[in-house]
Amino acid sequence: MGGDNAPAEIVAGAVQAARNGEVQVMLVGDPEQVEAELANHDTSSLPIGAVPSEGVIAEGESPITALRQTPRASILVSTGMVKKGLADGCVTMGSTGAAMAAGAFLLGMIKGIERPALGGPVIGLAPRTVVIDLGANVDGRPAQLLSFAVMGDVFARQFWGVERPRVAMLSVGSEASKGNRQTRETSELLSNSRLNFVGNVEANDLASVDVAVCDGFVGNIVMKLTEGLGQGMSDHVRTLLEGKLPESEVDRVARSVYELNNDRCSG
Amino acid sequence: MGGDNAPAEIVAGAVQAARNGEVQVMLVGDPEQVEAELANHDTSSLPIGAVPSEGVIAEGESPITALRQTPRASILVSTGMVKKGLADGCVTMGSTGAAMAAGAFLLGMIKGIERPALGGPVIGLAPRTVVIDLGANVDGRPAQLLSFAVMGDVFARQFWGVERPRVAMLSVGSEASKGNRQTRETSELLSNSRLNFVGNVEANDLASVDVAVCDGFVGNIVMKLTEGLGQGMSDHVRTLLEGKLPESEVDRVARSVYELNNDRCSG
Repeated sequence: MGGDNAPAEIVAGAVQAARNGEVQVMLVGDPEQVEAELANHDTSSLPIGAVPSEGVIAEGESPITALRQTPRASILVSTGMVKKGLADGCVTMGSTGAAMAAGAFLLGMIKGIERPALGGPVIGLAPRTVVIDLGANVDGRPAQLLSFAVMGDVFARQFWGVERPRVAMLSVGSEASKGNRQTRETSELLSNSRLNFVGNVEANDLASVDVAVCDGFVGNIVMKLTEGLGQGMSDHVRTLLEGKLPESEVDRVARSVYELNNDRCSG
Repeated sequence: MGGDNAPAEIVAGAVQAARNGEVQVMLVGDPEQVEAELANHDTSSLPIGAVPSEGVIAEGESPITALRQTPRASILVSTGMVKKGLADGCVTMGSTGAAMAAGAFLLGMIKGIERPALGGPVIGLAPRTVVIDLGANVDGRPAQLLSFAVMGDVFARQFWGVERPRVAMLSVGSEASKGNRQTRETSELLSNSRLNFVGNVEANDLASVDVAVCDGFVGNIVMKLTEGLGQGMSDHVRTLLEGKLPESEVDRVARSVYELNNDRCSG
């Protein structure tokens, strides 16, 4: 139910995913709205169904209060299905805070992990680098950042089959002394961990490591700056090339520049 | 004497600047090396001369120790010339830390300013936005960040003639509640200042304000990520276009993409 142009775009995407045949999809949301959207697609013979929920938690609402006031909200129903083993995972376009809170409350945390984190390969130019945390936690304590590094390490092993992921601290210089208090203290913990810690990585060199650990404030700025520059650059390239190449070619180049700056998790 | 390919490239750039006729240049450095480089250029009738210094402070050295041990280092001699009124300003490609320390010690700070900061329009896509601080100060106290905002405000007024510069806090959401402890506390100080504080700005929207204030850790990551993406994107565009357009045109587009991501202070 959450996200831009929901539920129309989300339902359209879910139908596409079901059509690819790799997943069975259960759409959790307001039954009337979801059914109305599904009716716009040919879903006969597709593994796609609907599960009713009531209400949606909006971006900007306090997640904890909202979860309490909307106990049948779509994010809670879908996370609950994972908890009960009725689904293997849940995907949301809605409020990040609500998703994190629903996960933490309903599924709980693995031992040793204090807080959930957001991470993944969000920069097209560094498609095999997990940047973590991307904004779930700001002012993170070094011990929390260490646990984010562990999550990134597991991600790189599980999804990419990297045997011994190179884990780095995102900082402002490659020397160990460079950084702020948080990064220096985290680096010390990383050095003493069993992770394959390779030291600091600078923002212009992210592709050189498998996992780049950072505070959520910094990670979020990295993600949004990359998106913003990608959009700006793509528009600019389009203007520069217009009339100089066939329109389809201009489109291809502009799109490619845009994608280089944005998540292409599909790998 | 400092910087990449010094002094050859620095002397070459200085000769170009002198040729433009807008400045008189005094090259501070090792007399033999500087004279040897100057001999490679036709400097007759150009307003360019040499001032001797002894030693250079390398990147990575502790600036304070180095300044004490190398009292005739080029950065100290050139900053001293500003102090004595023999020069209107000094330009360095060398150690940033040494330049900041030399400035702070020899020239002192304006009343109310605790620490020097680095700032300027470093993003080509936001050519009229001062980002400050870019890395001179990490873990800055909110009062220090307020003083960086004041410096940015003066820059935008003096260099761009903006009457009432829009000053924003670089943060991870546009709402005042979004950010970390440092940005929230700084925002409160900014709200109570006489600056034209417009709230938070996100990294994908920097061009919408005249001054974006941030901790040096964050500013440095913004600057380096932008440079790195610009280089990567420029290379990528070149590859995409090769053979599809005349070489000079490919070059123009690739260069333009690169410049969009890098300092073009010349404005």
